[in-house]
Amino acid sequence: MANEFDLIEQYFSRPVPEHFLGVGDDCALLPVDAGRQLAVSTDLLLEGRHFFSDVDPASLGHKALAVNLSDLAAMGAEPLACLLSISLPGIDHAWLKAFSDSFHALAAASSCPLVGGDTTRSVSGIVLSVTVLGQVDPALALRRAAARPGDDIWITGRLGAADVALRLLQGRLPSDPALLGATRAALEWPQPPLVFAQRLPGLAHAALDISDGLLQDLRHILKASRCGAELDYGALPVHPALAPLDEGLRREAVLSGGDVYQLCFTADPRMRERIVELAAQTGTELARVGRIVSGQGLVLRDAGGQPIDALGGGYDHFG
Amino acid sequence: MANEFDLIEQYFSRPVPEHFLGVGDDCALLPVDAGRQLAVSTDLLLEGRHFFSDVDPASLGHKALAVNLSDLAAMGAEPLACLLSISLPGIDHAWLKAFSDSFHALAAASSCPLVGGDTTRSVSGIVLSVTVLGQVDPALALRRAAARPGDDIWITGRLGAADVALRLLQGRLPSDPALLGATRAALEWPQPPLVFAQRLPGLAHAALDISDGLLQDLRHILKASRCGAELDYGALPVHPALAPLDEGLRREAVLSGGDVYQLCFTADPRMRERIVELAAQTGTELARVGRIVSGQGLVLRDAGGQPIDALGGGYDHFG
Repeated sequence: MANEFDLIEQYFSRPVPEHFLGVGDDCALLPVDAGRQLAVSTDLLLEGRHFFSDVDPASLGHKALAVNLSDLAAMGAEPLACLLSISLPGIDHAWLKAFSDSFHALAAASSCPLVGGDTTRSVSGIVLSVTVLGQVDPALALRRAAARPGDDIWITGRLGAADVALRLLQGRLPSDPALLGATRAALEWPQPPLVFAQRLPGLAHAALDISDGLLQDLRHILKASRCGAELDYGALPVHPALAPLDEGLRREAVLSGGDVYQLCFTADPRMRERIVELAAQTGTELARVGRIVSGQGLVLRDAGGQPIDALGGGYDHFG
Repeated sequence: MANEFDLIEQYFSRPVPEHFLGVGDDCALLPVDAGRQLAVSTDLLLEGRHFFSDVDPASLGHKALAVNLSDLAAMGAEPLACLLSISLPGIDHAWLKAFSDSFHALAAASSCPLVGGDTTRSVSGIVLSVTVLGQVDPALALRRAAARPGDDIWITGRLGAADVALRLLQGRLPSDPALLGATRAALEWPQPPLVFAQRLPGLAHAALDISDGLLQDLRHILKASRCGAELDYGALPVHPALAPLDEGLRREAVLSGGDVYQLCFTADPRMRERIVELAAQTGTELARVGRIVSGQGLVLRDAGGQPIDALGGGYDHFG
């Protein structure tokens, strides 16, 4: 845009740590510790697909970075820096201030400064592309392929609220201001367990962040690790706002609801005590929900140990 | 999109070097050599703004990566890997094959494998976001702030052809198939001097890639380095296809035409011989076009040494 450099200066340039070269050169330069590898992930977010046109710009600025930080967390990586490319149909200073303040607030809180990106005028709606860079000991990184039969399966946070909020906002559930009020923050202000995650390497084996739904995402670990899993339905951490819902809807939101940005990870049972201790130290909600087994497939069991044909078997998660 | 994973598998997953973790986990993992820093840059490319809707997908696949590699070149960095996020209004397999084959061809030729990204269905046109990662000795990186009075100014490649091709395609110049044929490759298949650039650290001081036009881009070096420059107009490397054009248009294309993706760099005059030798070894066209001076401002001189009031003085490049 005509005043691209002014926009970058005004809203996106912030001081970066010493030894970093940030916004304003052809590349940003970043140090990676000897013995650690660079971890990198990127997400593309489009107006009308990934967020509503009237979304609160403050929540969008938070979420655009949070969903990427969640990928670093899923690898057990320590954040290093981020890049933001933004394309806007026009210049709305109030919008830009709210968006960038919120983005920078999370960047600062997670030690992940914005060091570069691209600014351009869009043809239609808002486009955001965020890339996060982190570092991790490659021998201990929480790869999807690292689960082993006998591992416990753990989940941080609570499931289902973001999915319910999305259904309400999309009109797929009848209007319910109280329910929306109780679930909306989970959708718009996701809080991936970043500090907890950075201390998991060495304690956990495989991990991923729940973005598409627990069952679908866990299947990626099972496929990559060539093993199966048993989940205890009653042990799954359900968001308290879902208590009044009917059981079918609650189950679907918990098992298949996306936008969670909490971790699902596996670990040797001998690590239970240390993992629980780490969760307590970092104020992280944590539930042990099942186990990795040899073979393949994903079985969900009720309190009596009987398999549940969740969601009417219409999903091939249970192949 | 429904078959996001299939698309990634079919078109974008390729083997990556040993010790890399590529497409398919939450993050890609990459090694950075001890003593070197990570260099990272990103570009967002939108249909209808950065490329035409009917663009040849092979040239788009090449250019989307080339313009980012050009940023690594401008830092003197060695490519390490790249990320590609792509949003498409639908799935056109012929388009995807041409695009991805061309993208991967340049990735392979420049040792910059695709290790991650994002795939999504777009609301309107095609959106591309490419991020490149490289590594460089931080003490020798070609920063914009590193020019010193007395430095020579050098340019690789030839200027002006991409700008003329763009004007022809946009109808801002009368139709001229011969001229378009002679200039179009410069616009659609830019060839940044990647091998030459990786060997410049230690020989050159400041550098950048010419993307917005020589005068505007050089001004970034002058501002960051707090110095001025004198350019010899007759020494500028003009693309031969521009010979038949009238002088006013040629001058504008050479001085202010964008999309060049060649280097402008500064170096101590004592390095002349080694720089010329490096250009010969790497098959790089090279011209010495002026010098960095103390003070500020950019002066363009004709063959007799007289200042030229280029472009009617309407540009504040000559402030």
